[in-house]
Amino acid sequence: MAIKKAFSRISRRALLAGLAGAPALSKLSLSTQAIAAAPDDPLPSWVDGPSKNVILDLVKATTDQASPNFVTPEARIATFDQDGTTWVEHPIYTQVVYCLERVPIVVKARPELKNVEPFRTVLSGDREAIAKLSLKDLEKIATVTLFGMTVDQFRADVEKWIAVAKHPRWDRLYTELTYQPMLELMRYLRAKDFKTYIVTGGGQDFVRTYSYRVYGIPPDQVVGTAGGVKYGYDKSGKPILTKEPRLLLNDNFAGKPEGIHLEIGARPVIAFGNSTGDREMLEYTKGGDGARAALLVLHDDAAREYAYGPAQGLPDTKVGTFTQALYDEATKNGWHIVSMRNDWRKVFAFER
Amino acid sequence: MAIKKAFSRISRRALLAGLAGAPALSKLSLSTQAIAAAPDDPLPSWVDGPSKNVILDLVKATTDQASPNFVTPEARIATFDQDGTTWVEHPIYTQVVYCLERVPIVVKARPELKNVEPFRTVLSGDREAIAKLSLKDLEKIATVTLFGMTVDQFRADVEKWIAVAKHPRWDRLYTELTYQPMLELMRYLRAKDFKTYIVTGGGQDFVRTYSYRVYGIPPDQVVGTAGGVKYGYDKSGKPILTKEPRLLLNDNFAGKPEGIHLEIGARPVIAFGNSTGDREMLEYTKGGDGARAALLVLHDDAAREYAYGPAQGLPDTKVGTFTQALYDEATKNGWHIVSMRNDWRKVFAFER
Repeated sequence: MAIKKAFSRISRRALLAGLAGAPALSKLSLSTQAIAAAPDDPLPSWVDGPSKNVILDLVKATTDQASPNFVTPEARIATFDQDGTTWVEHPIYTQVVYCLERVPIVVKARPELKNVEPFRTVLSGDREAIAKLSLKDLEKIATVTLFGMTVDQFRADVEKWIAVAKHPRWDRLYTELTYQPMLELMRYLRAKDFKTYIVTGGGQDFVRTYSYRVYGIPPDQVVGTAGGVKYGYDKSGKPILTKEPRLLLNDNFAGKPEGIHLEIGARPVIAFGNSTGDREMLEYTKGGDGARAALLVLHDDAAREYAYGPAQGLPDTKVGTFTQALYDEATKNGWHIVSMRNDWRKVFAFER
Repeated sequence: MAIKKAFSRISRRALLAGLAGAPALSKLSLSTQAIAAAPDDPLPSWVDGPSKNVILDLVKATTDQASPNFVTPEARIATFDQDGTTWVEHPIYTQVVYCLERVPIVVKARPELKNVEPFRTVLSGDREAIAKLSLKDLEKIATVTLFGMTVDQFRADVEKWIAVAKHPRWDRLYTELTYQPMLELMRYLRAKDFKTYIVTGGGQDFVRTYSYRVYGIPPDQVVGTAGGVKYGYDKSGKPILTKEPRLLLNDNFAGKPEGIHLEIGARPVIAFGNSTGDREMLEYTKGGDGARAALLVLHDDAAREYAYGPAQGLPDTKVGTFTQALYDEATKNGWHIVSMRNDWRKVFAFER
């Protein structure tokens, strides 16, 4: 099951927190916004300092023809995890919210599910009961909401949902909760002839519905957890592809470099992540010859976004876990930690 | 087994023909070269006529902003089958030649295989005996030559081989046996902001080693039959990806649109093939809204290349079969047949 791993990373507590409402928006931390960026700065939301320099130095080393680490444009690959790296993942993954909110619509089309668990519980709206659903229940929900339809139907459904679905804390569209520094970085890398890819543990088909609009990344540059599809025909004889609950790629942990090989076929020059699920992608990236960079976003900014680790004594979480072991490994291996609190002038585009 | 399907399409006779040497180069048919192309013609190797017009009309309809069928650049997807569509596939697929020629090197590293069938037969050099090998034998050969090594080792091996391996008929590198009209077409489409993809029944990892150099197509725009890889570490602790004999995608027949969904995530606007293995890709392409084009190369030119079908009374073949049923379906559904003999001024760049 494609969604199984994603769900397995979500504790009941996290789910409960997400469903039971979210903390009020705290006062913005303005400390990192004190110094304005230079007018020609390609990364104005990044504070001048080590994190920004890691990026600028890597780009210089790989794009300057005189550099011993020059990389030809077709090999300039940059990969970004999505949840927690390019947009908000707390209190629960956006795609899980989609699955739960999709249940009433599925039941309308398949009324036989109405009185069957776990659908009955989801329909009840009882958030505490929903948060107590087992992993197996959540898998059943994923199966009816993510598989069985054509890829065109799925795309249309997600597009409709994501156009209006809002995050409870900010009361803003999920797609507005992308990190401004990462959007700038993607644009900057593309201007330097890098190809930018999303490499996400989330569903490939899900993310592809909005990736171009939100990140400027076309569907073929989104690698994600992917199930098989089956070619067939509708009643009128038109060819269709139907989504099957058959896992082809679990794009988490070791699955990330495996997925990169399958769908990109070249090793990244620079990779960004934020959790243990990104560890192997960063390790694989740094394992290549020449200049390479691996960066991890640390969520240490409860005021502007969230604070979780448990690295560095931050609160523990099952959603986007950043362990102290990962922190130590990063430090030891020359991967760079990006502090959301200290390195980003702005987190969201809508901040003033 | 990734290679199983490819091998299953090769008859013993075809294999025998390939191994036993090839017909002498016949006199070039010059009939189609009589009229020189205009100096600003983007497709100079294409004879002016219906085939060329199908392409030019499609490009005009999808790239002219005033056209009702205008397609935004990020959705301009063009897919090309490889074997028989962009390069020579007769008398046997290039990758099968690689597998057979690779056996002595594998046995050198694994001498225990020396006296084991089918490796003993391949090592004997007895072409008639080799041609009699069973499908199961060929699978064993594929397993030791295509799997078990790291992706980097495999890439290095293929790069070394393809740099020198020659086709017996022309005594030229396989990579020189690409069709000049298709190379022009790829360049033309890219100049019109199309993304060009190879969608091949051949091995994805195999084709990716030379796709950029030969076609200008980077590895991530090659979709092919693909096995899984396993992330791990070498003795020094360096991360590696090992090729496993575990099929993820059989990129033939219905597998082509399925593979397009997996690795491209959007429906082609224009697709090119030459055999029954491309049927579903063309059908899927034409099944989309707006202007779409599907084209099939018919090998009807024994003088300059090969002649096989069995469509239109051409000789039958197991390598790149183009049945009369496919021909009739194409005619009925508005897919276009490209006659190699009549529509191409030049087949190869090296022709005078």
